[in-house]
Amino acid sequence: MNETVDAFHRGGFHVVQPKGTGHRSGIDAMLLASMVNATGPVTVADLGAGAGAAGLAVASRLPQARVLLVERSSLMVDYARKTLDLPHNARLAERVKVLEADVTLTGKARVAAGLADELYDHAIMNPPFNDPGDRSTPDVLKAEAHAMSEGLFESWIKTAGAIVRPGGQLSLISRPQSIADIIAACGRRFGGLEITVVHPRPGEDATRLLVTAIKGSRARLVFRAPLFLHGKEGHGFTAEADDLNNGRMAYARRTTRRR
Amino acid sequence: MNETVDAFHRGGFHVVQPKGTGHRSGIDAMLLASMVNATGPVTVADLGAGAGAAGLAVASRLPQARVLLVERSSLMVDYARKTLDLPHNARLAERVKVLEADVTLTGKARVAAGLADELYDHAIMNPPFNDPGDRSTPDVLKAEAHAMSEGLFESWIKTAGAIVRPGGQLSLISRPQSIADIIAACGRRFGGLEITVVHPRPGEDATRLLVTAIKGSRARLVFRAPLFLHGKEGHGFTAEADDLNNGRMAYARRTTRRR
Repeated sequence: MNETVDAFHRGGFHVVQPKGTGHRSGIDAMLLASMVNATGPVTVADLGAGAGAAGLAVASRLPQARVLLVERSSLMVDYARKTLDLPHNARLAERVKVLEADVTLTGKARVAAGLADELYDHAIMNPPFNDPGDRSTPDVLKAEAHAMSEGLFESWIKTAGAIVRPGGQLSLISRPQSIADIIAACGRRFGGLEITVVHPRPGEDATRLLVTAIKGSRARLVFRAPLFLHGKEGHGFTAEADDLNNGRMAYARRTTRRR
Repeated sequence: MNETVDAFHRGGFHVVQPKGTGHRSGIDAMLLASMVNATGPVTVADLGAGAGAAGLAVASRLPQARVLLVERSSLMVDYARKTLDLPHNARLAERVKVLEADVTLTGKARVAAGLADELYDHAIMNPPFNDPGDRSTPDVLKAEAHAMSEGLFESWIKTAGAIVRPGGQLSLISRPQSIADIIAACGRRFGGLEITVVHPRPGEDATRLLVTAIKGSRARLVFRAPLFLHGKEGHGFTAEADDLNNGRMAYARRTTRRR
Protein backbone atom coordinates (compact mmCIF):
# COMPACT_ATOMS: atom_id res chain seq x y z
CA MET A 1 0.00 0.00 0.00
CA ASN A 2 1.06 3.55 -0.64
CA GLU A 3 0.99 4.46 3.03
CA THR A 4 2.97 4.06 6.22
CA VAL A 5 2.03 3.45 9.84
CA ASP A 6 4.31 5.59 11.98
CA ALA A 7 4.86 5.32 15.72
CA PHE A 8 4.92 8.46 17.91
CA HIS A 9 5.55 8.93 21.64
CA ARG A 10 7.84 5.87 21.55
CA GLY A 11 4.99 3.67 20.35
CA GLY A 12 2.29 5.29 22.47
CA PHE A 13 0.15 5.77 19.38
CA HIS A 14 0.41 5.33 15.61
CA VAL A 15 -0.58 7.43 12.60
CA VAL A 16 -1.44 6.17 9.13
CA GLN A 17 0.04 8.55 6.57
CA PRO A 18 0.21 8.64 2.77
CA LYS A 19 3.63 7.99 1.29
CA GLY A 20 5.11 10.54 -1.10
CA THR A 21 2.12 12.88 -1.15
CA GLY A 22 0.69 15.51 1.17
CA HIS A 23 2.13 16.60 4.48
CA ARG A 24 3.87 13.98 6.63
CA SER A 25 3.84 14.65 10.35
CA GLY A 26 6.90 14.59 12.52
CA ILE A 27 8.39 16.65 15.32
CA ASP A 28 6.41 19.77 14.26
CA ALA A 29 3.17 18.00 15.16
CA MET A 30 4.62 16.76 18.46
CA LEU A 31 5.85 20.25 19.46
CA LEU A 32 2.44 21.66 18.55
CA ALA A 33 0.70 19.06 20.74
CA SER A 34 3.06 19.77 23.64
CA MET A 35 1.63 23.29 23.99
CA VAL A 36 -1.69 21.92 25.30
CA ASN A 37 -1.38 21.86 29.08
CA ALA A 38 -4.22 20.72 31.35
CA THR A 39 -4.67 18.84 34.60
CA GLY A 40 -8.33 17.89 34.04
CA PRO A 41 -10.81 17.77 31.17
CA VAL A 42 -9.90 19.90 28.16
CA THR A 43 -11.48 20.25 24.72
CA VAL A 44 -9.12 20.78 21.82
CA ALA A 45 -9.74 21.60 18.15
CA ASP A 46 -6.87 20.58 15.87
CA LEU A 47 -7.31 22.87 12.84
CA GLY A 48 -5.86 21.42 9.65
CA ALA A 49 -5.25 18.14 11.43
CA GLY A 50 -4.05 16.08 8.47
CA ALA A 51 -3.86 12.43 9.52
CA GLY A 52 -4.25 13.48 13.14
CA ALA A 53 -0.73 13.28 14.58
CA ALA A 54 -0.90 16.43 16.75
CA GLY A 55 -4.44 15.80 17.98
CA LEU A 56 -3.64 12.20 18.88
CA ALA A 57 -0.50 13.31 20.67
CA VAL A 58 -2.67 15.57 22.85
CA ALA A 59 -5.13 12.74 23.55
CA SER A 60 -2.27 10.37 24.29
CA ARG A 61 -0.56 12.60 26.87
CA LEU A 62 -3.75 14.01 28.46
CA PRO A 63 -6.19 11.24 29.45
CA GLN A 64 -9.09 13.66 29.92
CA ALA A 65 -8.60 15.56 26.64
CA ARG A 66 -11.33 15.42 24.00
CA VAL A 67 -10.04 16.31 20.52
CA LEU A 68 -11.73 17.37 17.28
CA LEU A 69 -9.61 16.81 14.17
CA VAL A 70 -10.67 19.37 11.54
CA GLU A 71 -9.43 18.70 8.02
CA ARG A 72 -10.56 19.91 4.59
CA SER A 73 -8.90 17.27 2.42
CA SER A 74 -11.04 14.16 2.10
CA LEU A 75 -7.84 12.21 1.35
CA MET A 76 -6.33 13.23 4.69
CA VAL A 77 -9.66 12.74 6.48
CA ASP A 78 -9.59 9.11 5.26
CA TYR A 79 -6.11 8.72 6.75
CA ALA A 80 -7.29 10.25 10.03
CA ARG A 81 -10.13 7.71 10.14
CA LYS A 82 -7.72 4.87 9.33
CA THR A 83 -5.53 6.18 12.14
CA LEU A 84 -8.41 6.08 14.64
CA ASP A 85 -9.37 2.58 13.47
CA LEU A 86 -5.96 1.12 14.33
CA PRO A 87 -6.42 -1.35 17.20
CA HIS A 88 -3.34 0.11 18.82
CA ASN A 89 -5.08 3.51 19.10
CA ALA A 90 -8.27 2.09 20.65
CA ARG A 91 -7.64 3.74 24.04
CA LEU A 92 -7.66 7.16 22.34
CA ALA A 93 -10.22 6.73 19.58
CA GLU A 94 -13.35 7.33 21.65
CA ARG A 95 -12.04 10.75 22.76
CA VAL A 96 -11.13 11.85 19.21
CA LYS A 97 -13.57 12.87 16.50
CA VAL A 98 -12.93 13.74 12.86
CA LEU A 99 -14.67 16.62 11.09
CA GLU A 100 -14.27 17.13 7.35
CA ALA A 101 -14.50 20.92 7.10
CA ASP A 102 -12.65 23.90 5.69
CA VAL A 103 -11.00 25.92 8.48
CA THR A 104 -11.45 29.11 6.45
CA LEU A 105 -15.27 28.97 6.56
CA THR A 106 -16.85 31.91 8.38
CA GLY A 107 -20.04 32.75 10.26
CA LYS A 108 -23.08 30.53 9.74
CA ALA A 109 -21.27 28.39 7.15
CA ARG A 110 -18.60 27.57 9.73
CA VAL A 111 -21.16 26.70 12.40
CA ALA A 112 -23.17 24.65 9.90
CA ALA A 113 -20.02 22.72 9.00
CA GLY A 114 -19.67 21.67 12.64
CA LEU A 115 -17.40 24.34 14.12
CA ALA A 116 -19.56 25.88 16.86
CA ASP A 117 -18.87 29.21 18.60
CA GLU A 118 -16.80 29.36 21.80
CA LEU A 119 -16.93 25.63 22.47
CA TYR A 120 -13.26 24.73 22.81
CA ASP A 121 -10.68 25.33 25.52
CA HIS A 122 -7.84 25.23 23.04
CA ALA A 123 -7.25 25.47 19.29
CA ILE A 124 -4.01 24.16 17.82
CA MET A 125 -2.75 24.64 14.25
CA ASN A 126 0.20 23.92 12.00
CA PRO A 127 -1.04 25.70 8.87
CA PRO A 128 0.24 24.41 5.55
CA PHE A 129 2.72 26.59 3.72
CA ASN A 130 4.22 26.89 0.31
CA ASP A 131 7.50 28.66 0.00
CA PRO A 132 7.43 32.17 -1.49
CA GLY A 133 11.19 32.38 -1.05
CA ASP A 134 11.85 29.45 -3.36
CA ARG A 135 14.39 30.74 -5.85
CA SER A 136 13.04 28.58 -8.66
CA THR A 137 9.63 30.25 -8.47
CA PRO A 138 8.99 33.32 -10.67
CA ASP A 139 8.39 36.59 -8.83
CA VAL A 140 4.71 36.71 -9.76
CA LEU A 141 4.09 33.29 -8.23
CA LYS A 142 6.16 34.29 -5.22
CA ALA A 143 3.99 37.33 -4.68
CA GLU A 144 0.79 35.31 -5.02
CA ALA A 145 2.01 32.64 -2.67
CA HIS A 146 2.94 35.28 -0.12
CA ALA A 147 -0.44 36.94 -0.40
CA MET A 148 -2.06 33.55 0.13
CA SER A 149 0.04 32.93 3.20
CA GLU A 150 -0.93 36.30 4.69
CA GLY A 151 -4.58 35.56 4.21
CA LEU A 152 -4.08 32.08 5.62
CA PHE A 153 -3.13 33.18 9.13
CA GLU A 154 -5.87 35.81 9.14
CA SER A 155 -8.58 33.28 8.23
CA TRP A 156 -7.29 30.42 10.36
CA ILE A 157 -6.79 32.55 13.49
CA LYS A 158 -10.18 34.20 12.90
CA THR A 159 -11.76 30.74 13.07
CA ALA A 160 -9.73 29.86 16.16
CA GLY A 161 -10.93 33.08 17.79
CA ALA A 162 -14.53 32.18 17.01
CA ILE A 163 -14.52 28.60 18.28
CA VAL A 164 -12.39 29.04 21.43
CA ARG A 165 -14.07 30.09 24.67
CA PRO A 166 -13.09 33.47 26.23
CA GLY A 167 -9.81 32.95 28.08
CA GLY A 168 -9.09 29.88 25.94
CA GLN A 169 -5.78 29.27 24.24
CA LEU A 170 -4.42 29.31 20.70
CA SER A 171 -1.21 27.39 20.02
CA LEU A 172 0.55 27.17 16.68
CA ILE A 173 3.81 26.24 15.04
CA SER A 174 5.03 28.17 12.02
CA ARG A 175 7.99 29.25 9.97
CA PRO A 176 9.89 32.24 11.42
CA GLN A 177 9.02 34.58 8.55
CA SER A 178 5.29 34.30 9.38
CA ILE A 179 5.67 36.23 12.63
CA ALA A 180 4.22 39.50 11.37
CA ASP A 181 1.19 37.76 9.82
CA ILE A 182 0.57 35.85 13.05
CA ILE A 183 0.76 38.91 15.30
CA ALA A 184 -1.50 40.86 12.92
CA ALA A 185 -4.05 38.03 12.80
CA CYS A 186 -4.09 37.70 16.59
CA GLY A 187 -4.98 41.41 16.65
CA ARG A 188 -7.61 41.96 19.33
CA ARG A 189 -8.72 38.33 19.24
CA PHE A 190 -5.76 36.83 21.07
CA GLY A 191 -3.22 38.56 23.32
CA GLY A 192 -0.50 37.66 25.76
CA LEU A 193 1.52 36.12 22.95
CA GLU A 194 4.35 33.90 24.14
CA ILE A 195 6.80 33.14 21.36
CA THR A 196 9.51 30.49 21.48
CA VAL A 197 12.09 30.61 18.73
CA VAL A 198 13.15 27.08 17.72
CA HIS A 199 16.70 26.51 16.46
CA PRO A 200 18.02 23.20 15.08
CA ARG A 201 21.26 23.75 17.01
CA PRO A 202 22.91 26.48 19.10
CA GLY A 203 24.46 29.04 16.76
CA GLU A 204 22.04 28.28 13.90
CA ASP A 205 19.19 30.38 12.51
CA ALA A 206 15.70 29.50 13.66
CA THR A 207 13.56 27.10 11.63
CA ARG A 208 10.29 27.34 13.56
CA LEU A 209 8.32 29.47 15.99
CA LEU A 210 6.06 28.15 18.74
CA VAL A 211 3.34 30.70 19.52
CA THR A 212 0.66 30.61 22.20
CA ALA A 213 -1.92 33.29 22.97
CA ILE A 214 -5.00 33.74 25.16
CA LYS A 215 -8.38 34.85 23.81
CA GLY A 216 -9.18 38.32 25.10
CA SER A 217 -5.85 38.82 26.89
CA ARG A 218 -4.20 42.25 26.73
CA ALA A 219 -0.87 41.08 28.15
CA ARG A 220 2.23 42.03 26.22
CA LEU A 221 4.09 39.77 23.85
CA VAL A 222 7.11 37.94 25.27
CA PHE A 223 9.92 35.93 23.75
CA ARG A 224 10.63 32.94 25.95
CA ALA A 225 13.93 31.12 26.22
CA PRO A 226 14.80 29.55 22.86
CA LEU A 227 14.35 25.85 22.19
CA PHE A 228 17.25 23.94 20.66
CA LEU A 229 16.31 20.65 18.99
CA HIS A 230 19.84 19.27 18.96
CA GLY A 231 23.08 20.05 20.75
CA LYS A 232 26.18 21.50 19.13
CA GLU A 233 27.04 18.07 17.74
CA GLY A 234 25.41 14.71 17.06
CA HIS A 235 21.99 13.67 15.82
CA GLY A 236 20.16 13.15 19.12
CA PHE A 237 17.55 15.55 20.44
CA THR A 238 18.29 17.71 23.47
CA ALA A 239 16.65 16.43 26.66
CA GLU A 240 13.95 19.13 26.42
CA ALA A 241 13.15 18.45 22.74
CA ASP A 242 13.10 14.71 23.38
CA ASP A 243 10.66 15.09 26.28
CA LEU A 244 8.36 17.27 24.17
CA ASN A 245 8.66 14.99 21.12
CA ASN A 246 7.74 11.94 23.16
CA GLY A 247 4.85 13.36 25.15
CA ARG A 248 6.61 13.18 28.51
CA MET A 249 6.10 16.87 29.21
CA ALA A 250 3.79 19.75 28.36
CA TYR A 251 5.32 22.97 27.07
CA ALA A 252 3.23 25.06 29.45
CA ARG A 253 2.68 28.79 29.08
CA ARG A 254 4.52 31.11 31.43
CA THR A 255 1.26 32.88 32.29
CA THR A 256 -2.20 31.37 32.00
CA ARG A 257 -4.08 34.09 33.83
CA ARG A 258 -6.20 36.30 31.61
CA ARG A 259 -5.29 39.94 32.19
CA MET B 1 28.12 68.89 38.78
CA ASN B 2 24.99 66.95 38.04
CA GLU B 3 26.69 64.77 35.46
CA THR B 4 29.00 61.82 35.13
CA VAL B 5 31.81 60.92 32.74
CA ASP B 6 31.53 57.25 31.92
CA ALA B 7 34.12 55.04 30.27
CA PHE B 8 33.14 52.63 27.48
CA HIS B 9 35.16 50.06 25.51
CA ARG B 10 37.39 49.60 28.59
CA GLY B 11 38.35 53.25 28.54
CA GLY B 12 38.55 53.59 24.76
CA PHE B 13 36.24 56.61 24.92
CA HIS B 14 34.15 58.49 27.46
CA VAL B 15 30.63 59.92 27.48
CA VAL B 16 29.38 62.85 29.55
CA GLN B 17 25.87 62.05 30.76
CA PRO B 18 23.35 63.80 32.98
CA LYS B 19 22.77 62.22 36.37
CA GLY B 20 19.25 61.29 37.42
CA THR B 21 17.51 62.63 34.32
CA GLY B 22 17.03 61.49 30.74
CA HIS B 23 18.32 58.28 29.22
CA ARG B 24 21.65 56.91 30.45
CA SER B 25 23.54 54.78 27.98
CA GLY B 26 24.93 51.36 28.75
CA ILE B 27 25.11 48.00 27.06
CA ASP B 28 22.11 48.78 24.82
CA ALA B 29 24.12 51.50 23.10
CA MET B 30 27.16 49.24 22.78
CA LEU B 31 25.11 46.39 21.25
CA LEU B 32 23.53 48.87 18.84
CA ALA B 33 26.97 50.13 17.78
CA SER B 34 28.24 46.58 17.28
CA MET B 35 25.82 46.08 14.39
CA VAL B 36 27.79 48.49 12.20
CA ASN B 37 30.26 46.37 10.26
CA ALA B 38 32.67 47.84 7.71
CA THR B 39 36.22 47.31 6.51
CA GLY B 40 36.66 50.75 4.93
CA PRO B 41 34.98 54.15 5.02
CA VAL B 42 31.38 54.13 6.25
CA THR B 43 28.94 56.94 7.02
CA VAL B 44 26.60 56.40 9.94
CA ALA B 45 23.62 58.40 11.22
CA ASP B 46 22.86 57.76 14.90
CA LEU B 47 19.17 58.72 15.18
CA GLY B 48 18.18 59.79 18.69
CA ALA B 49 21.83 59.76 19.70
CA GLY B 50 21.45 61.17 23.23
CA ALA B 51 24.90 61.97 24.59
CA GLY B 52 26.45 60.00 21.72
CA ALA B 53 27.45 56.68 23.29
CA ALA B 54 26.45 54.44 20.34
CA GLY B 55 27.80 56.78 17.67
CA LEU B 56 31.11 57.16 19.49
CA ALA B 57 31.34 53.42 19.93
CA VAL B 58 31.08 53.06 16.15
CA ALA B 59 33.74 55.72 15.57
CA SER B 60 35.98 54.13 18.21
CA ARG B 61 35.88 50.62 16.72
CA LEU B 62 35.92 51.66 13.04
CA PRO B 63 38.74 54.14 12.30
CA GLN B 64 37.25 55.14 8.92
CA ALA B 65 33.69 55.65 10.17
CA ARG B 66 32.14 59.14 9.98
CA VAL B 67 29.20 59.56 12.34
CA LEU B 68 26.35 62.07 12.56
CA LEU B 69 24.71 62.24 16.00
CA VAL B 70 21.08 63.34 15.52
CA GLU B 71 19.29 64.43 18.68
CA ARG B 72 16.18 66.54 19.30
CA SER B 73 16.76 67.44 22.95
CA SER B 74 18.99 70.49 23.32
CA LEU B 75 19.90 69.23 26.79
CA MET B 76 21.25 65.98 25.34
CA VAL B 77 22.87 67.80 22.41
CA ASP B 78 24.83 69.82 24.99
CA TYR B 79 26.00 66.59 26.59
CA ALA B 80 26.97 65.19 23.18
CA ARG B 81 29.06 68.35 22.57
CA LYS B 82 30.66 68.05 26.02
CA THR B 83 31.40 64.44 25.17
CA LEU B 84 33.16 65.40 21.92
CA ASP B 85 35.11 68.15 23.75
CA LEU B 86 36.67 65.67 26.20
CA PRO B 87 40.43 65.59 25.49
CA HIS B 88 40.29 61.83 25.82
CA ASN B 89 37.92 61.65 22.82
CA ALA B 90 40.07 63.87 20.57
CA ARG B 91 40.99 61.00 18.23
CA LEU B 92 37.31 60.51 17.46
CA ALA B 93 35.92 64.03 17.60
CA GLU B 94 36.85 65.12 14.09
CA ARG B 95 34.94 62.19 12.57
CA VAL B 96 31.79 62.84 14.64
CA LYS B 97 29.31 65.68 14.09
CA VAL B 98 26.29 66.69 16.16
CA LEU B 99 22.99 67.74 14.59
CA GLU B 100 20.17 69.11 16.73
CA ALA B 101 17.14 67.89 14.80
CA ASP B 102 13.91 65.98 15.30
CA VAL B 103 14.12 62.50 13.76
CA THR B 104 10.39 62.60 13.00
CA LEU B 105 10.66 65.50 10.55
CA THR B 106 9.63 64.60 7.00
CA GLY B 107 10.28 65.75 3.43
CA LYS B 108 11.71 69.22 2.90
CA ALA B 109 11.63 70.02 6.63
CA ARG B 110 13.87 67.00 7.29
CA VAL B 111 16.31 67.95 4.54
CA ALA B 112 16.31 71.59 5.71
CA ALA B 113 17.13 70.41 9.23
CA GLY B 114 20.27 68.72 7.91
CA LEU B 115 19.12 65.17 7.18
CA ALA B 116 19.76 64.79 3.45
CA ASP B 117 18.34 62.06 1.21
CA GLU B 118 20.25 58.79 0.64
CA LEU B 119 23.53 60.07 2.06
CA TYR B 120 24.33 57.45 4.70
CA ASP B 121 25.56 53.87 4.51
CA HIS B 122 23.96 53.00 7.81
CA ALA B 123 21.34 54.35 10.22
CA ILE B 124 21.31 53.15 13.82
CA MET B 125 18.62 53.82 16.42
CA ASN B 126 17.64 52.99 19.98
CA PRO B 127 14.30 54.79 20.07
CA PRO B 128 13.11 56.02 23.47
CA PHE B 129 10.19 54.20 25.01
CA ASN B 130 7.71 54.71 27.75
CA ASP B 131 6.07 51.66 29.19
CA PRO B 132 2.44 51.09 28.20
CA GLY B 133 2.46 47.94 30.33
CA ASP B 134 3.20 49.86 33.51
CA ARG B 135 0.56 48.67 35.95
CA SER B 136 0.44 52.01 37.75
CA THR B 137 -0.63 53.83 34.59
CA PRO B 138 -4.38 54.23 33.90
CA ASP B 139 -5.70 52.44 30.82
CA VAL B 140 -6.29 55.65 28.90
CA LEU B 141 -2.67 56.70 29.31
CA LYS B 142 -1.56 53.19 28.45
CA ALA B 143 -3.52 53.33 25.22
CA GLU B 144 -2.08 56.74 24.35
CA ALA B 145 1.44 55.63 25.14
CA HIS B 146 0.99 52.57 22.99
CA ALA B 147 -0.33 54.61 20.11
CA MET B 148 2.66 56.92 20.44
CA SER B 149 5.04 54.00 20.41
CA GLU B 150 3.48 52.59 17.24
CA GLY B 151 3.84 55.89 15.47
CA LEU B 152 7.38 56.20 16.74
CA PHE B 153 8.81 53.26 14.80
CA GLU B 154 6.86 54.28 11.70
CA SER B 155 8.28 57.81 11.75
CA TRP B 156 11.81 56.90 12.80
CA ILE B 157 12.18 54.09 10.27
CA LYS B 158 10.63 56.30 7.58
CA THR B 159 13.42 58.82 8.21
CA ALA B 160 16.03 56.05 8.19
CA GLY B 161 14.65 54.85 4.86
CA ALA B 162 14.94 58.36 3.43
CA ILE B 163 18.50 59.15 4.52
CA VAL B 164 20.13 55.73 3.87
CA ARG B 165 21.44 54.94 0.40
CA PRO B 166 19.86 52.06 -1.57
CA GLY B 167 21.38 48.84 -0.23
CA GLY B 168 22.32 50.60 3.01
CA GLN B 169 21.60 49.17 6.43
CA LEU B 170 19.25 49.94 9.31
CA SER B 171 20.19 48.62 12.75
CA LEU B 172 18.17 49.05 15.91
CA ILE B 173 17.74 47.77 19.42
CA SER B 174 14.26 47.59 20.96
CA ARG B 175 12.05 45.94 23.51
CA PRO B 176 10.67 42.55 22.40
CA GLN B 177 7.06 43.72 22.29
CA SER B 178 7.89 46.24 19.56
CA ILE B 179 8.52 43.53 16.97
CA ALA B 180 5.24 43.96 15.09
CA ASP B 181 5.65 47.76 14.89
CA ILE B 182 9.20 47.37 13.62
CA ILE B 183 8.31 44.85 10.90
CA ALA B 184 5.36 46.99 9.82
CA ALA B 185 7.50 50.12 9.68
CA CYS B 186 10.20 48.37 7.64
CA GLY B 187 7.44 47.52 5.17
CA ARG B 188 8.80 47.95 1.65
CA ARG B 189 11.54 50.30 2.81
CA PHE B 190 13.78 47.72 4.43
CA GLY B 191 13.85 43.96 3.93
CA GLY B 192 16.04 41.02 4.75
CA LEU B 193 15.37 41.52 8.45
CA GLU B 194 17.76 39.65 10.71
CA ILE B 195 16.48 39.50 14.27
CA THR B 196 18.50 38.45 17.28
CA VAL B 197 16.56 37.83 20.48
CA VAL B 198 18.58 38.95 23.52
CA HIS B 199 18.11 37.11 26.82
CA PRO B 200 19.72 38.13 30.13
CA ARG B 201 20.46 34.46 30.83
CA PRO B 202 19.69 31.04 29.34
CA GLY B 203 16.18 30.02 30.40
CA GLU B 204 14.97 33.62 30.85
CA ASP B 205 12.54 35.64 28.73
CA ALA B 206 14.05 38.08 26.26
CA THR B 207 14.62 41.71 27.25
CA ARG B 208 15.77 43.13 23.92
CA LEU B 209 15.77 42.55 20.18
CA LEU B 210 18.60 43.41 17.81
CA VAL B 211 17.24 44.05 14.31
CA THR B 212 19.10 44.78 11.10
CA ALA B 213 17.63 45.27 7.63
CA ILE B 214 18.77 46.32 4.17
CA LYS B 215 17.13 49.12 2.18
CA GLY B 216 15.32 47.68 -0.84
CA SER B 217 16.03 44.04 0.05
CA ARG B 218 13.26 41.48 -0.51
CA ALA B 219 14.99 38.70 1.42
CA ARG B 220 12.94 36.93 4.05
CA LEU B 221 13.09 37.62 7.74
CA VAL B 222 15.32 35.35 9.82
CA PHE B 223 15.82 34.80 13.52
CA ARG B 224 19.50 34.34 14.23
CA ALA B 225 20.98 32.43 17.13
CA PRO B 226 19.97 34.09 20.40
CA LEU B 227 22.38 36.27 22.37
CA PHE B 228 22.77 35.60 26.08
CA LEU B 229 24.23 38.50 28.07
CA HIS B 230 25.17 36.37 31.08
CA GLY B 231 25.66 32.68 31.76
CA LYS B 232 23.44 30.54 33.95
CA GLU B 233 25.14 31.97 37.03
CA GLY B 234 27.30 34.89 38.05
CA HIS B 235 27.36 38.56 37.09
CA GLY B 236 29.92 38.51 34.29
CA PHE B 237 29.03 38.85 30.64
CA THR B 238 29.32 35.89 28.29
CA ALA B 239 32.40 36.04 26.04
CA GLU B 240 30.25 37.13 23.07
CA ALA B 241 28.41 39.87 24.99
CA ASP B 242 31.69 41.09 26.49
CA ASP B 243 33.32 41.33 23.06
CA LEU B 244 30.35 43.28 21.68
CA ASN B 245 30.12 45.51 24.76
CA ASN B 246 33.79 46.41 24.55
CA GLY B 247 34.06 47.02 20.81
CA ARG B 248 36.34 44.07 20.13
CA MET B 249 33.98 42.62 17.53
CA ALA B 250 31.27 43.64 15.08
CA TYR B 251 27.96 41.84 15.18
CA ALA B 252 27.96 41.37 11.41
CA ARG B 253 24.88 40.48 9.39
CA ARG B 254 24.58 36.95 8.07
CA THR B 255 23.88 38.27 4.58
CA THR B 256 24.94 41.66 3.26
CA ARG B 257 24.08 41.07 -0.37
CA ARG B 258 21.02 42.92 -1.60
CA ARG B 259 18.59 40.46 -3.15
